[in-house]
Amino acid sequence: MRVGVLTGGGDCPGLNAVMRAMVRKGVKQYGHEFIGFRDGWRGPLEGDTSKLDIPAVRGILPRGGTILGSSRTNPLKAEDGVRRVKENLAKHEVDALVAIGGEDTLGVASTLSDDYGIPCVGVPKTIDNDLNATDYTFGFDTAVNIATEAIDRLHTTAESHMRVLVIEVMGRHAGWIALHAGLAGGANVILIPERRFDIDQVCAWVESRFKVRYAPIIVVAEGAMPKDGDMVTKDGTLDSFGHVRLSGIGDWLAKEIEKRTGKEARTTVLGHIQRGGTPTAFDRWLATRFGLHAIDAVHERDFGKMVALRGTNIVRVPLAEATAKLKTVDPSLYEEAQVFFG
Amino acid sequence: MRVGVLTGGGDCPGLNAVMRAMVRKGVKQYGHEFIGFRDGWRGPLEGDTSKLDIPAVRGILPRGGTILGSSRTNPLKAEDGVRRVKENLAKHEVDALVAIGGEDTLGVASTLSDDYGIPCVGVPKTIDNDLNATDYTFGFDTAVNIATEAIDRLHTTAESHMRVLVIEVMGRHAGWIALHAGLAGGANVILIPERRFDIDQVCAWVESRFKVRYAPIIVVAEGAMPKDGDMVTKDGTLDSFGHVRLSGIGDWLAKEIEKRTGKEARTTVLGHIQRGGTPTAFDRWLATRFGLHAIDAVHERDFGKMVALRGTNIVRVPLAEATAKLKTVDPSLYEEAQVFFG
Amino acid sequence: MRVGVLTGGGDCPGLNAVMRAMVRKGVKQYGHEFIGFRDGWRGPLEGDTSKLDIPAVRGILPRGGTILGSSRTNPLKAEDGVRRVKENLAKHEVDALVAIGGEDTLGVASTLSDDYGIPCVGVPKTIDNDLNATDYTFGFDTAVNIATEAIDRLHTTAESHMRVLVIEVMGRHAGWIALHAGLAGGANVILIPERRFDIDQVCAWVESRFKVRYAPIIVVAEGAMPKDGDMVTKDGTLDSFGHVRLSGIGDWLAKEIEKRTGKEARTTVLGHIQRGGTPTAFDRWLATRFGLHAIDAVHERDFGKMVALRGTNIVRVPLAEATAKLKTVDPSLYEEAQVFFG
Amino acid sequence: MRVGVLTGGGDCPGLNAVMRAMVRKGVKQYGHEFIGFRDGWRGPLEGDTSKLDIPAVRGILPRGGTILGSSRTNPLKAEDGVRRVKENLAKHEVDALVAIGGEDTLGVASTLSDDYGIPCVGVPKTIDNDLNATDYTFGFDTAVNIATEAIDRLHTTAESHMRVLVIEVMGRHAGWIALHAGLAGGANVILIPERRFDIDQVCAWVESRFKVRYAPIIVVAEGAMPKDGDMVTKDGTLDSFGHVRLSGIGDWLAKEIEKRTGKEARTTVLGHIQRGGTPTAFDRWLATRFGLHAIDAVHERDFGKMVALRGTNIVRVPLAEATAKLKTVDPSLYEEAQVFFG
Repeated sequence: MRVGVLTGGGDCPGLNAVMRAMVRKGVKQYGHEFIGFRDGWRGPLEGDTSKLDIPAVRGILPRGGTILGSSRTNPLKAEDGVRRVKENLAKHEVDALVAIGGEDTLGVASTLSDDYGIPCVGVPKTIDNDLNATDYTFGFDTAVNIATEAIDRLHTTAESHMRVLVIEVMGRHAGWIALHAGLAGGANVILIPERRFDIDQVCAWVESRFKVRYAPIIVVAEGAMPKDGDMVTKDGTLDSFGHVRLSGIGDWLAKEIEKRTGKEARTTVLGHIQRGGTPTAFDRWLATRFGLHAIDAVHERDFGKMVALRGTNIVRVPLAEATAKLKTVDPSLYEEAQVFFG
Repeated sequence: MRVGVLTGGGDCPGLNAVMRAMVRKGVKQYGHEFIGFRDGWRGPLEGDTSKLDIPAVRGILPRGGTILGSSRTNPLKAEDGVRRVKENLAKHEVDALVAIGGEDTLGVASTLSDDYGIPCVGVPKTIDNDLNATDYTFGFDTAVNIATEAIDRLHTTAESHMRVLVIEVMGRHAGWIALHAGLAGGANVILIPERRFDIDQVCAWVESRFKVRYAPIIVVAEGAMPKDGDMVTKDGTLDSFGHVRLSGIGDWLAKEIEKRTGKEARTTVLGHIQRGGTPTAFDRWLATRFGLHAIDAVHERDFGKMVALRGTNIVRVPLAEATAKLKTVDPSLYEEAQVFFG
Repeated sequence: MRVGVLTGGGDCPGLNAVMRAMVRKGVKQYGHEFIGFRDGWRGPLEGDTSKLDIPAVRGILPRGGTILGSSRTNPLKAEDGVRRVKENLAKHEVDALVAIGGEDTLGVASTLSDDYGIPCVGVPKTIDNDLNATDYTFGFDTAVNIATEAIDRLHTTAESHMRVLVIEVMGRHAGWIALHAGLAGGANVILIPERRFDIDQVCAWVESRFKVRYAPIIVVAEGAMPKDGDMVTKDGTLDSFGHVRLSGIGDWLAKEIEKRTGKEARTTVLGHIQRGGTPTAFDRWLATRFGLHAIDAVHERDFGKMVALRGTNIVRVPLAEATAKLKTVDPSLYEEAQVFFG
Repeated sequence: MRVGVLTGGGDCPGLNAVMRAMVRKGVKQYGHEFIGFRDGWRGPLEGDTSKLDIPAVRGILPRGGTILGSSRTNPLKAEDGVRRVKENLAKHEVDALVAIGGEDTLGVASTLSDDYGIPCVGVPKTIDNDLNATDYTFGFDTAVNIATEAIDRLHTTAESHMRVLVIEVMGRHAGWIALHAGLAGGANVILIPERRFDIDQVCAWVESRFKVRYAPIIVVAEGAMPKDGDMVTKDGTLDSFGHVRLSGIGDWLAKEIEKRTGKEARTTVLGHIQRGGTPTAFDRWLATRFGLHAIDAVHERDFGKMVALRGTNIVRVPLAEATAKLKTVDPSLYEEAQVFFG
């Protein structure tokens, strides 16, 4: 078989590990050939390809990012997109296409597979961990570790000075990174997009913290919103996706807390360092196993499926089902965490 | 309620995180009081206690080891052990005892609970991840990351010189650390206790590796054994537990490979650095959630149980069941990994 | 002798290491006794003390921050400040006072020593490395490593997407952190307070970078200013010290680049994570040696001096000289770095 | 000018950073061309070359090892070696040769330059920091940080159990890594090759440590020797260089301490992980500056020189002088450290 591969959406530690595992197993065990498509769905749409053989994947396991590049191109929105994809796949004699990506990238794979008969297999990728049907996605553990290490460092200052420290982490629609890093880092307040926060309550937690002679650390997901959300959006700090901008809510929160409590507040905005660098061991292991099982699905021509983690097992689920719904933080999990607030 | 806590067996990153979570939730939500017993089961056996309140657990979340100390004392083997434990628990008015430990520590808890009516709840701890009934134990992810980072560093030398690099990791009876770190680190050979290895096959992998102008990295669990295991044990390198000593199999392997292939080989023995230092974010999250759910079990007087991870949920399982059998590496997982060998 | 110790100014990894070394050597070798003063010069001013013996310094070597707390209190500006300090030192029978701090803290020590005969020894501390008379101060190497690791992570995204990545680091008056981390991280542009930047030139470097299919990374010190600095200050983003606020210049730069080049730009603001957490080996070694030599100076009653690093040696310099002038980045060093720009 | 480059001896983090800096500055500022010679002196001896232009050095700054490979080939010991080197340099029209390496590699450069008129510039490299004429060599700071982090992790176990923990680090002839990492990690005993140790004294330190309820950590350089050195060498554990083997002295020490004190002892042998992986910020900065200044020396045809660090400046020293004598640990530095022993 001849297998096409593409990586779409935001970059994420582990993408290269998936490809290395697929190529190693596909070539050695099944005699597959591989071809890389560049920059997500732009590759098959425009016929832009890249060599993808065993030498090409040597040494890429620990490297973040993706050797194939990425983009947010959507062939379903391009003129004549599906026909062009089909032609390019035919031209390169591709028998199966593995799409590695998040909700958008896999949604396209789902449609192309179910509605147009293009033989796709999906591999879930999202640093935000907000994809349904899988316990975890790779990249998430790396992001959580980076954010946790940052919180660890803030504790030093919190112990030595009397300042409120705000750290803004990724998560536009789901607060998984904030919740996990906040718990692991011992934050005093965790604010997530799933639950509008009450700034008075936040200030009350801040005040109570100072009473034990130790300054509070607040972890806030970039998509978290105060109850009266207009306060933020009126600043005009909306980005091209219509969401609150990076560096928006953290700074807003610090200023608001200073104003209301009279305590100095400082913000750290982790930004893209959360999605860069070498993957953690867990993410490499998960990405590698996803790759091994995706190529098994290809070999068995089990198309329209996505590999997923359930407990310690890799299973297959229909792409359509996997991309139907965002996985947000369960209210009970957030409430469980609140015992550490204040 | 008044809750006793002890930590037994080898130290493991995350022990302190469990205790912090229990105390925070127990005190704030349920009004519990806590008392620490020192050095595992030696504490209740000899009545050696330690304060365990909110100030005592402040700042310990990121700290490896255990503030209560640990030991391998077994009260079931001590003269009059059960009676002495009971007396000391009564003396300190303990209503429930939480034992945090591995197979041995929890086995005692199981017996004391089931046979002697001592109200115990267990929290599983083993760096080796070899405890049944839970997907993962805390400490394991930390150990795997430490070993993976070490393998990453060895790749640099492997790229620049033509040397065989052997790295010996923990795992006397189960090869989980070797398997996960070997996969995550891109090792060329992984040797685990569950499968006796053929030294000729190992040398063949080594030779094949040199053909692509890149030196091989071999990850070996300390409990791995060659098919003719007497070769190692005849050296008299047995430790007090009757197992192959730390620094045994790695050095043996390096010497044997040098002798058989004529290539220089070097060994790294990670030893105790695998179980030390700050826990990873995953281990802190898991330990924290174990602590929160253990105290729920105590509150509900659901004794004789152990908290366990299943997927992303914390569940409770009978202690007796949890400690009945060692969880070793499934042959299919090991075979899946072999596509990367050589 | 009875030795008082205080730590002043912003916290900095290595403060605890200095104190541990002083106490260990002072007690064991010279038979000194120690007393800690809390929160910088507030301690001797108000007579707020803390135990400082061998048990108190156990385990603090790897811990960031300061066990004595810190503040920016200046006794020379307090009513009757000098007299109160003298009285409190006399009351606690202090024969010598070691002040660990930056320009402000040591400036006070210099005045108290030279003008009022208070027997002071200084240990230089500034994360910004901007103190004259010493090759390096501890804390700086830690900050540079944290910033470098962050830049490393940004490279991943820069390789996979076509975005401008801006990272704002500490440095209000001196660009040492930006320069060292920028060089070590392979940044494409480094902007420092010592040299006003030309936004057109920055945009030209950005554009040239995109031509080699790889996105640019810009490291900017918080105190860097465009040639027409009013652009920033008109926003009213001044903090209580009269400087541009944390998260000011980085965000300004990203927006300006987006506007002028049409490329998406993202900002990371490292903030206080640069001064937190465990010190690097270099900083621990330097802090430890500073401590050992400071206590030698005390023992020899060589007051009015500061310990300093020259090459690999620890020397003593007059406090007055050490605090006379800020050490900024030499123009030739900045020009040397420009070969990597664009 | 056309500049040849080679890297010799053991690999060391920072080699790639040197080359990147030279090529960037040489090409952009001076219009130089570069050619790489493979595997140290084997390259010019056998005429084995490698492309070395700006694309070749892209992305290598953070990567350990050397893209040119390395070896211990000595052309002065090869038949007709000098003539062959000269011929190959002439064949590739090389105007200057930059040799990056340790004592051996630079010794060859010194002879070829001084006795045979081959225009050489040297860049010092040794992980052991034992090269005279420079304050530090790159790679050393990385090794010390790796060893220090390992010691940090061992403290966790030392706090929780009552075990002697031995960690063996690199250093056959000089104890710099052991001394710096031991100080930075808070070791209780540091043993270096420059000073034969007394096993009775070591055991006394071990015993005294247990009295404060905290287990001892011993850092031992691989080249450290007991006063009666025959005890080790009689085991036949000599390697091809006539020195004690990796994993020799650490294990010996652990067994001897167990035998004499009755305490359990465990060994970690860091081995090659000390010289692998990404360089620290300091090593990248030093390597980069060495590269920039080496190409200046080439440009100025200032041959027979080596770049060196003095304080914060890069200077040039005669190669002959630089390689004349090993830099070992000064007795006064070792004595200074002993205040922390026991």
